[in-house]
Amino acid sequence: MASFTRLVRFLAKDGRTYYGDAILPKGITDIGKTTQARVIRGSPWGAHSVTEQVADVRLLLSPLDRADTQSVRCLGLNYAQHAAESNMPLPTYPVLFYKPVTAVAGPFDPIPVPAIAQEAPGLDYECELVAVIGRACANVPEAEALSYVAGYCVGNDVSHREWQLKRGGGQWALGKGFDGWAPMGPGIVSSKLIKDPQALRIATKLNGKVVQESSTADMVFSVAKTIAFLSQGTTLLPGDVIFTGTPQGVGMGRKPQLWLKDGDVVEVSLEGVGSCINKVEFEKSKPKL
Amino acid sequence: MASFTRLVRFLAKDGRTYYGDAILPKGITDIGKTTQARVIRGSPWGAHSVTEQVADVRLLLSPLDRADTQSVRCLGLNYAQHAAESNMPLPTYPVLFYKPVTAVAGPFDPIPVPAIAQEAPGLDYECELVAVIGRACANVPEAEALSYVAGYCVGNDVSHREWQLKRGGGQWALGKGFDGWAPMGPGIVSSKLIKDPQALRIATKLNGKVVQESSTADMVFSVAKTIAFLSQGTTLLPGDVIFTGTPQGVGMGRKPQLWLKDGDVVEVSLEGVGSCINKVEFEKSKPKL
Repeated sequence: MASFTRLVRFLAKDGRTYYGDAILPKGITDIGKTTQARVIRGSPWGAHSVTEQVADVRLLLSPLDRADTQSVRCLGLNYAQHAAESNMPLPTYPVLFYKPVTAVAGPFDPIPVPAIAQEAPGLDYECELVAVIGRACANVPEAEALSYVAGYCVGNDVSHREWQLKRGGGQWALGKGFDGWAPMGPGIVSSKLIKDPQALRIATKLNGKVVQESSTADMVFSVAKTIAFLSQGTTLLPGDVIFTGTPQGVGMGRKPQLWLKDGDVVEVSLEGVGSCINKVEFEKSKPKL
Repeated sequence: MASFTRLVRFLAKDGRTYYGDAILPKGITDIGKTTQARVIRGSPWGAHSVTEQVADVRLLLSPLDRADTQSVRCLGLNYAQHAAESNMPLPTYPVLFYKPVTAVAGPFDPIPVPAIAQEAPGLDYECELVAVIGRACANVPEAEALSYVAGYCVGNDVSHREWQLKRGGGQWALGKGFDGWAPMGPGIVSSKLIKDPQALRIATKLNGKVVQESSTADMVFSVAKTIAFLSQGTTLLPGDVIFTGTPQGVGMGRKPQLWLKDGDVVEVSLEGVGSCINKVEFEKSKPKL
């Protein structure tokens, strides 16, 4: 079991990058406001220890280094009211797709929008609870599933609806998998602190205005059910992350539809964890195709 | 550019695991028949050298260690005659999905079939040319795309049609992503040797009988077009692999349909590369759900 309580990865004021255990000032629960952390020696996904060395945080990075994550699993249609707004029936089984690890980004990184995703409208946000696997597992019974979770953070499953739904031949991976389209963080709260992942407020603000607001209680498949299901015949590895779907209120489901624009600021937040705040940045260069 | 000509990873008779450059006896082109290889020092995806040390091969492993592969990309419906047998229109853009790295397996490994994939019929084979990225790239023009390919091998995109098409909510990842469902190899032939990946015979034998037989010339999107497309706004990393779709003749497209059974032996082969030969092994244990 991981020994951290709130895992962060950060660029320190000394110019180096560390894993650390966030030191939160009294009364603060948003890990994004971390200014100091106890340095972690070793890999949080293997043998490691939280030291007494305190480092000053300059910038929080994705709590998982790309080299420490093998798979980014994501669920679709996993909140009842989101399935309704998408005009889709409740799924019988969890609906799984993957993002590449190059999609993983930090809690305050910009969201780069490449030319291919500027050709048509459809850029959308999705706040999601992200479960991080701490120990390798396969064929896990639901009752034991949460014991394999190192902790939880919040992520934005950035999506381009035209590529996801219309131009991708029905497969969602391309329109959700561009570089930096899975910002996550601001830190990973240990499952020792979050014992029930199904009772957390989750929300998105777009340019300061609330656009998604729900509770993880509305999930169709709980985190435990999801891990039990996905681990059938499939080994989940330490550092693997699972984006567990988004609640209602996405831009696609609104009337009129609401698409992200260049310069928009999207904040996704999860109770007890904090917020990722990411600015949409349309890339200027044309694709070279 | 990689300095190997035919990259293999193997368990040697000395009990150790090496990367190596296959030494093929005169007249032999199937890397699967490799009995000796020059040992490679370093990572084939970074600085490395082919040494004069020769090791005896006991068993060929997946030419890519799991730690050396970040993403397994796969295309659907990328052969014209396969799209026809699937009753699907030719895609306008490449249809992308991912497998987890835990699906990667060696050229002679068994294909484990977990209980979840034994509940309903639908277990199928798909021979595919697999392109392996040698250098990180993004936004690659088609004319330069092949210069980022380290080499080619053959793979089997093992698929369970019921989970892929019916129970996955339309997303293919779950029904194609079980542990060991992407055997590949037997070695990676450098793109110095295979200059034109669109003129290779590709085939599958099931229990010794040819069931798929085509040419990579029938691909809808060439390897170069595929890399140019997939790299838009997306960084492809060294060691990433791309399964480029399968030709006609899959079990699903046959009349009557032909599903893999426990004990079946599937051989996928690619001209100039060789064969992967994998035995279907139904797992005995029930899922614990």
